[in-house]
Amino acid sequence: MSWLDQSIMRTRGLAQGRSAETHALTEAKQGKFHYTIGPYSDPVLQVRPGDRVVVDTRDAFEGAVKTEQDLPSRVLRMPFVNPQNGPILVEGADKGDVLAVYIESMAPRGPNPRGTCAMIPQFGALSGTSLTALLADSLPEIVRKIDLDEDGVYWSRRVTLPYRPHIGTLSCSPEIDSINTLTPDAHGGNMDLPDMGPGSITYLPVRTPGARLFIGDAHACQGDGEVCGTAVEYPSTTTIQVDVIKGWNLEWPRLENENRIMCIGSARPLEDATRIAYKELVLWLEAEYGYERWDAYMMLSQCGLVRLGNFVDPKYTVGAGIEKKYLVP
Amino acid sequence: MSWLDQSIMRTRGLAQGRSAETHALTEAKQGKFHYTIGPYSDPVLQVRPGDRVVVDTRDAFEGAVKTEQDLPSRVLRMPFVNPQNGPILVEGADKGDVLAVYIESMAPRGPNPRGTCAMIPQFGALSGTSLTALLADSLPEIVRKIDLDEDGVYWSRRVTLPYRPHIGTLSCSPEIDSINTLTPDAHGGNMDLPDMGPGSITYLPVRTPGARLFIGDAHACQGDGEVCGTAVEYPSTTTIQVDVIKGWNLEWPRLENENRIMCIGSARPLEDATRIAYKELVLWLEAEYGYERWDAYMMLSQCGLVRLGNFVDPKYTVGAGIEKKYLVP
Amino acid sequence: MSWLDQSIMRTRGLAQGRSAETHALTEAKQGKFHYTIGPYSDPVLQVRPGDRVVVDTRDAFEGAVKTEQDLPSRVLRMPFVNPQNGPILVEGADKGDVLAVYIESMAPRGPNPRGTCAMIPQFGALSGTSLTALLADSLPEIVRKIDLDEDGVYWSRRVTLPYRPHIGTLSCSPEIDSINTLTPDAHGGNMDLPDMGPGSITYLPVRTPGARLFIGDAHACQGDGEVCGTAVEYPSTTTIQVDVIKGWNLEWPRLENENRIMCIGSARPLEDATRIAYKELVLWLEAEYGYERWDAYMMLSQCGLVRLGNFVDPKYTVGAGIEKKYLVP
Amino acid sequence: MSWLDQSIMRTRGLAQGRSAETHALTEAKQGKFHYTIGPYSDPVLQVRPGDRVVVDTRDAFEGAVKTEQDLPSRVLRMPFVNPQNGPILVEGADKGDVLAVYIESMAPRGPNPRGTCAMIPQFGALSGTSLTALLADSLPEIVRKIDLDEDGVYWSRRVTLPYRPHIGTLSCSPEIDSINTLTPDAHGGNMDLPDMGPGSITYLPVRTPGARLFIGDAHACQGDGEVCGTAVEYPSTTTIQVDVIKGWNLEWPRLENENRIMCIGSARPLEDATRIAYKELVLWLEAEYGYERWDAYMMLSQCGLVRLGNFVDPKYTVGAGIEKKYLVP
Repeated sequence: MSWLDQSIMRTRGLAQGRSAETHALTEAKQGKFHYTIGPYSDPVLQVRPGDRVVVDTRDAFEGAVKTEQDLPSRVLRMPFVNPQNGPILVEGADKGDVLAVYIESMAPRGPNPRGTCAMIPQFGALSGTSLTALLADSLPEIVRKIDLDEDGVYWSRRVTLPYRPHIGTLSCSPEIDSINTLTPDAHGGNMDLPDMGPGSITYLPVRTPGARLFIGDAHACQGDGEVCGTAVEYPSTTTIQVDVIKGWNLEWPRLENENRIMCIGSARPLEDATRIAYKELVLWLEAEYGYERWDAYMMLSQCGLVRLGNFVDPKYTVGAGIEKKYLVP
Repeated sequence: MSWLDQSIMRTRGLAQGRSAETHALTEAKQGKFHYTIGPYSDPVLQVRPGDRVVVDTRDAFEGAVKTEQDLPSRVLRMPFVNPQNGPILVEGADKGDVLAVYIESMAPRGPNPRGTCAMIPQFGALSGTSLTALLADSLPEIVRKIDLDEDGVYWSRRVTLPYRPHIGTLSCSPEIDSINTLTPDAHGGNMDLPDMGPGSITYLPVRTPGARLFIGDAHACQGDGEVCGTAVEYPSTTTIQVDVIKGWNLEWPRLENENRIMCIGSARPLEDATRIAYKELVLWLEAEYGYERWDAYMMLSQCGLVRLGNFVDPKYTVGAGIEKKYLVP
Repeated sequence: MSWLDQSIMRTRGLAQGRSAETHALTEAKQGKFHYTIGPYSDPVLQVRPGDRVVVDTRDAFEGAVKTEQDLPSRVLRMPFVNPQNGPILVEGADKGDVLAVYIESMAPRGPNPRGTCAMIPQFGALSGTSLTALLADSLPEIVRKIDLDEDGVYWSRRVTLPYRPHIGTLSCSPEIDSINTLTPDAHGGNMDLPDMGPGSITYLPVRTPGARLFIGDAHACQGDGEVCGTAVEYPSTTTIQVDVIKGWNLEWPRLENENRIMCIGSARPLEDATRIAYKELVLWLEAEYGYERWDAYMMLSQCGLVRLGNFVDPKYTVGAGIEKKYLVP
Repeated sequence: MSWLDQSIMRTRGLAQGRSAETHALTEAKQGKFHYTIGPYSDPVLQVRPGDRVVVDTRDAFEGAVKTEQDLPSRVLRMPFVNPQNGPILVEGADKGDVLAVYIESMAPRGPNPRGTCAMIPQFGALSGTSLTALLADSLPEIVRKIDLDEDGVYWSRRVTLPYRPHIGTLSCSPEIDSINTLTPDAHGGNMDLPDMGPGSITYLPVRTPGARLFIGDAHACQGDGEVCGTAVEYPSTTTIQVDVIKGWNLEWPRLENENRIMCIGSARPLEDATRIAYKELVLWLEAEYGYERWDAYMMLSQCGLVRLGNFVDPKYTVGAGIEKKYLVP
């Protein structure tokens, strides 16, 4: 039996692991993409627990950066960036439930050079920004167009990076807010977490009827922290399977893969994101894995695993995890 | 000639200081209050530049905390707190303009004890919170009901505080986001800045047609930082006058009173809020007051004035100001 | 009876307000100045509680910036900046006591232009720094030499600023650490707090026998936050009176003047400095002024006063205060 | 040829890889341990580049926590914790050089239960602390005594953790400061970085003649961030080899192991520690590995590796690294 069959999604989800219909969410079907994640937009699709959706995502620049001469400051118009597919309604999901999103696969779409990385003025961890507001000049604005396929990301003559795709932005709708697609928060959003790739299940808190799933911002690879502000952004065909776990009332997203479970926090300063992630993990071990609270806290001090998603977005994202082998009773 | 006649609002606004119609935005006229500030709600009023609006605001608990036994954790239902009046459409205001909001007066409404202060679990600067997430127990949950009138805030037998009213939350709508009323940001929002009382003009960036003004959260008094998380919250009759300054493209709110101008930033950590406020002020002195940039920066290092609005909301708010006497050419 | 006669220093100090000997700590007597504050240097003076010391301080550049062409990056050699007078031993002071330092007067020394303000590369709140490390270019390096006397600080043809002197750096020695003179911390240090001028009493925790008082870094004026990184730095003759309060075991410095008491915290991020200051103030009101803890906390949320000392040093400094009129039983 | 023969230490160090004398720094030889790292203490040993030193370290509680009933708040006396061996003088090392410290092995010392983990009041990432000062109660004070050997750390009946030793505190002396052993900074100090174990070389900036090496704080294992505030602290026999790289003028420590190079930053807030680490890494790739600066910055955004050392000490520590395979020309 695979780990997936034993996952929380498969064992506690409404679908009980039964894959049902497969839906295609093509660009045409999507129509208008979204730049804010909330309850005010019209659903493009309605699916059932266990259904698969094949999603054609656009890159974070919505294809506007076609050559290395297409500087973001000229071709982008804020806040219309990081386009999201969705919202997808999932039957049976309601406030107080969890939407499980299993990423089955991510394939590149469109002709090369389909990867884009950019240094954008007043953006990135080693630059003054709109929030860390300084009088220093911006760093140079630079665009890199990059060939990539499922075998590699051809960064330069010198360096080929592995193709390690993940979804940068994944969310259910907040209850009453609508949050721009650059910002991660308790709803998910622009977490830019490299763990969120094929073979992972993300558990998102549901806050509105039908969950209203948004998805976008595929990365062909990304380092910890996404230091310059962008990953290798690319258009993808991302295949997901969704399920609903009733009555699992989460504050923040969580993630599971073959070897780990992880809690995800997004906040500034970065220690607050890390606190959220670890606090959630302590409480999870206590609530569902038979650990006494302080034993969990002290043990994570010895074996906790931290992933820095990004420290460039309006909130920073951290995942705190533990290997599943320590969860066996 | 009063300072008001020489203010930016009066000298650059469309109304040219002519007061026109006075509108009443009563509770009945308002109907449904708002808990999120964005472009998706229906206007309750349309006014013209120079018009006055007499607004009946509800307190931040929307009146649900009637006695000291009404604990917030029982009588409030998140995120439905800090109710806002509006949105008010202002003719002639459009993206790239500024909405000037002059606060003419603030009077208490309703029977005493009409003031409320509370220690709310997982809220406040000296407690763990949802963002500074800790495993420590919450502080005790305590409600104080306080008599107040225009002569004083009768805190205890020992202490009477001065009645120094201000508006805690003031905003135009963001362009596409809808932001809960607990959070301040570039649109204004829950700034909790004591300077924003009668005799002040706040300049808010306009990002949608008609500006869509929201207003609420009156405080009878508040200390710097609002350390326990709440001020003396009360229902008010707040009279404002609005005007539109065309083509003044601001990133963040600004404020003017008889003696000072001020720029307002909201961010975490607190130094980032302060950076935003000071950077905006340096650039303002350069753009409109004839200061060379580095002269302004170095001079503010000698005479800049910082007000801490709050360091308890999801973003913290700081105002950085300078006395008007230094602005004379 | 003056406020001073009723001050904590005068009512609880060993000297009981009796002024005794006056000592002169001239440059010659000082000899070698200090760039680190700790227990490892030799005392230059020993005084008794109630004694006055007339201290000739050097400016923070130790006089090396004589003209506007003397760029700090050329004439300074790190970490040898911000020279301190002392250490001064005070009889009767020991670990667990408090040293009270009343600043009686501060007069300028030496010929004009005796004031210096500088923008120093990789320093200042609106620049990348050694701690907020960025790849952005430094701001320009600029020196301003400024005439000043006790009537004013002649900033430019356009602006004359008031002479509002204060001591930037004031400390007793830590117990075992020796801390560079750029950094404020629980021992005091480089707090850059404008309230620390003539007419103020600073209460410093004593951690070594004799207290080992260090003093320096006079500012002719300074804005809240010292945004560009430097005040109007100048050489001063500063007259202080010291006293010892036995068995007052403080964690952080405190301050008293005619109208206020204040607690001082230094930390990063800035909210942590503010938390320290307010927590100390709550506990002080509880311990010595008859307030119940949560009453103090909630009341400070209505009348607390925050001063931002600096947000440019390796730790940031905040004072949280309350007006004395609220302390009357 | 092993990676060690190709390491920076072996190829650029004075010893040229020649191992010379082996010294024993036993507890007896050490005598008085140190709680502050600076230039004011007497050396216990003088060695030459290439020499090995076998160091008997004490645990961070200096053995005072012998049973689970020995609560730290009772048996420890601040600031006398985290005892360090040293200072060790290394011939030929001077300001502007680097001291390379290769950790050859770490073996447990003394009888079991020789491991100690504790929750200490007002310490740890999910508690209020002396710096994140809150009014909330402390978490419970708990001590865990743990058996451990080179095969495992026997945490509980349920969980055995791998023995993954590393040195928590490693430093050369600052130039004039003396820094308590709880704080990491540019000199090294209490970094609590799990990568600093056997098979790693740490490169420390030298700031005083002879480098003055301090070492202590062995951990039998530690999770990312050391969330509860302590690792599995234990007394060790740690064997190191030291060497001197002349004229390598570093601001912050760096690390090398078989597969990676890493830069280490320590600061608050946590994003500043991460900024330091990544900035240093960008500049390192530019200065020594033939990368153009912006290419390095953008590439690290795709393949940079972040390790959170601790977010519990007075400054937080982050390592930013890259796999050596990307450094091949």
